[in-house]
Amino acid sequence: MGDRTTLRRKPDRAIDDRQAIHALIDEAVYCHVGIVAGDGTDAHPVVIPMLHARQGERLLLHGSPASRLLRTARDGVDLCATITLPDALVLARSGLHHSMNYRSVVVLGRATEVIDHDEKVEALDRFVEHAVPGRTARIRPATTQEVKGTLVLSVPLDDCSMKVRSGPPIDDEADMDSDTWAGLIPLHQGVGTPIPDEATGDATVPGHVAFWSRGRR
Amino acid sequence: MGDRTTLRRKPDRAIDDRQAIHALIDEAVYCHVGIVAGDGTDAHPVVIPMLHARQGERLLLHGSPASRLLRTARDGVDLCATITLPDALVLARSGLHHSMNYRSVVVLGRATEVIDHDEKVEALDRFVEHAVPGRTARIRPATTQEVKGTLVLSVPLDDCSMKVRSGPPIDDEADMDSDTWAGLIPLHQGVGTPIPDEATGDATVPGHVAFWSRGRR
Repeated sequence: MGDRTTLRRKPDRAIDDRQAIHALIDEAVYCHVGIVAGDGTDAHPVVIPMLHARQGERLLLHGSPASRLLRTARDGVDLCATITLPDALVLARSGLHHSMNYRSVVVLGRATEVIDHDEKVEALDRFVEHAVPGRTARIRPATTQEVKGTLVLSVPLDDCSMKVRSGPPIDDEADMDSDTWAGLIPLHQGVGTPIPDEATGDATVPGHVAFWSRGRR
Repeated sequence: MGDRTTLRRKPDRAIDDRQAIHALIDEAVYCHVGIVAGDGTDAHPVVIPMLHARQGERLLLHGSPASRLLRTARDGVDLCATITLPDALVLARSGLHHSMNYRSVVVLGRATEVIDHDEKVEALDRFVEHAVPGRTARIRPATTQEVKGTLVLSVPLDDCSMKVRSGPPIDDEADMDSDTWAGLIPLHQGVGTPIPDEATGDATVPGHVAFWSRGRR
């Protein structure tokens, strides 16, 4: 674990487990990427939601070469990618102890651009498979022009940390006689019924779409 | 709208509608807050998930005075709070056009600390009501010590922008004859059955817990 992401507060919420970090990155559909935009006194943080994928010990990001955030990140500046999954609202007997059960990973690092054509093709497949497992087998391969027209960045997972809050509310002893209902409202990624595009001729919903799901229920 | 959050790309996805911005902030349970940590060559972005609330044209953040991010933000530095709600996975006929339907708001600003006791009490109530509407009426008021021990920051919503992607996949004309299923997998905030704390004597789940929900279905 890197120095900068070592948890300074509530270290009991820290998880130093590569498998857990990988699983969280894989479960989350998207992440939030922060960079420092502007120079000198105009320097300010910008945080943008982005789809991501994972390749071993690297986080992959992609988008249009016109994206300001990606262009900035390509220059080898520090970025922070944070992945959060909410698991429950924590309802305590006092306002102070209300909280959220969640899992989050914070990745700090400098991106390198993926330039090699074959590596880019593999990365692009990973984005599709990350979002919708089983999907790459159903779509045509990317054209050379499409590969060229997509910017792919790769960030090492060297300097990252995971934080988890789980379990019931922790109340003050003096509040335990309260008749206020306390406990958890579980949260998860809800999935609706697939909506076929009007131009889709075949109305049968394939399995990788019909059974798409993420995480716990 | 502030200059820095004016959308430079895909301005068709920009929404300049205060009501829509407020509604999105109110619907989202939490946000991602980015600051620039460190100085000089060590300056780097840090992005952390945080519960939030809204008070008119201001975004409220809170936490322990020991929080590094909040302490940094209290010093009047620029922060970026980004709120994202995923609405659907967009499955196109080519990998390139896969996307996500989502709504997001990016807020750039400098926080001011809420110091006045009464204003802090009101802000703390808003955090509870934001997470669980109807909850403040069921819990005891915060003690003076609790109010003192919580850091509350307020960020103006002056410099913010909203971005939305909605609708079906947009495919290349040449791919429209493909027999690949294309369309949307709708996403929403899933809610499970409330789990009472073991020490909760009254097993009846009150309405504000039993019927908690967020956004579309």
